[in-house]
Parts: sequence; structure tokens; C-alpha cells
Amino acid sequence: MDRIPILKIGEILLVSIQVDMDDHTALALQDDLTERIVDTHAHGVIIDITALDIVDSFIGRMLSTIASVSRVLDAETVVVGMRPAVAITLVELGLSLTGVRTALNVERGLELLGRNAPARAASLTDGIDDDAHSGTDTAAFTS
Amino acid sequence: MDRIPILKIGEILLVSIQVDMDDHTALALQDDLTERIVDTHAHGVIIDITALDIVDSFIGRMLSTIASVSRVLDAETVVVGMRPAVAITLVELGLSLTGVRTALNVERGLELLGRNAPARAASLTDGIDDDAHSGTDTAAFTS
Repeated sequence: MDRIPILKIGEILLVSIQVDMDDHTALALQDDLTERIVDTHAHGVIIDITALDIVDSFIGRMLSTIASVSRVLDAETVVVGMRPAVAITLVELGLSLTGVRTALNVERGLELLGRNAPARAASLTDGIDDDAHSGTDTAAFTS
Repeated sequence: MDRIPILKIGEILLVSIQVDMDDHTALALQDDLTERIVDTHAHGVIIDITALDIVDSFIGRMLSTIASVSRVLDAETVVVGMRPAVAITLVELGLSLTGVRTALNVERGLELLGRNAPARAASLTDGIDDDAHSGTDTAAFTS
């Protein structure tokens, strides 16, 4: 189990990170993801980090790299499921997820990607309830 | 990271199993899933086992239990992403995933759940390409 599965939903690729990332796993994920984007013509990548207790500079850099590579391949990356504590630590440490967009959860991520590329992905979120959240659910971390 | 994240997409809950399951993890997953089904009024559960190289009787029983509990709560369970080798081993060992439905991948799983509860989930699969697969992509394992 050294590879993180990449799930395809419509034109979106979904990755749920649950294992501790090391160099090898990160590189493998990057390779696999790049290949899948090209193979499936995906226009969006959602990376779920619900399971992560810590996002250090290594993970941060990995997310930024994935976002940059995806962008070159015409796919946008959204990181979802960040825990409040992780968000606070990120800001306190001054870590910026360069070029990475974030959303509260997978549904919001799908919405975000749907808005930017309305064609087909939009229909993916048609049936989704708008929960009682308001305010800034999504933000672009750039520096 | 002792809990497996449960992602919500519309009225479907999505679980991607990537870690080795032990008693503790399996029980925690079962508890979390049951709670989430009630909280979110989900009508379907998709369990992705792409990352699993082996499905032994322990995992098989866990999947069956999850399916049974979910059914009591009016949610159908679909297992997706089973590797060919896993399928062969299951049959050879005579392990039956009692009451568990299977589909080739997440998209097929969403379609399957959409067909059975057409209301809202159907819109989730509207935009999804029909890949060049045919034949029996889905099957109900019962015994």
C-alpha cells in the first residue's frame, strides 16, 4: 500500500491523504496524479487532508508542487478538509500554500471547481445541499 | 491518523480504505460511518478498496457488517475499486461479501446508487462519461 489511490468523479480527480507522507510517497503521488490528469483530461484535482493532524513545510511544498504541475496541465487544485488547528499552525508558522486554493469540504471543492469550469462539473454539484455555512469558505493562499 | 476520513458528496458518503485494518480501526470506522449516515441523512455509502492488495475474511466480514448496519439505516453500500487479483482470490477462497454490492469504480458506484434512489443523487452522475466498459460491471454478492 505505498500508493495513494486517485478516484475519478466526472472530470475531477479526488485524492484522500491518510498516510504519513515521505519523499517516496509524495513523488509517487505526484507522478500518478500527473499521469491521471493527462489520461482522463481532468480539469480539477481535490486533495482531502481531513486525516492530517499536521501540515509541515514538506507537505506544504508537496501541495504547492502538485498545484503548479496540475495548472500547467490545465487542472486546478483545491485542498479540502483542513482542520482548524492545522490552519492556525500554518498561519503561525508563516507557511503559505502558494498557488493552492482551499475549500471547507469536498462538496465545496466540487462547487468551486464547477464554478470555474461550468461545463460538466457543474452538474456534479446540482444535487448538493447548501449547508448552513457562510462567509469565507474558500480562500486562495498566495504569497 | 487512526480514523479513516468519511467524505460526503451529495447524499453519498465516500470512504477510501488505505490503511491496514485492525479491530480498532474497523470498529471506529463502523461507528463513525453509522453516526454520519444518521447526521447527514445519507442514502448511500461507497467504500473504495483500490489500495487493498488483499481482502481476507476479516475485511470481508467488516464490509458485510457495514453494509448490514447501513441497510438498517436506509443506506445502500457499494464496494468499488476491487483489484482483479482480489476478486479472483475472493472467489477461490469461497469468501462471499454477503449483502455487499460492488461496482468497478467510484463513478459506477455513484451511478448505481443514483439509479436506486433517483431523486437527488442522479444529478451527481449527469456529467459523467460512460467509459468503454460493458458487461457486468456491477454484481450483488449474496449467499
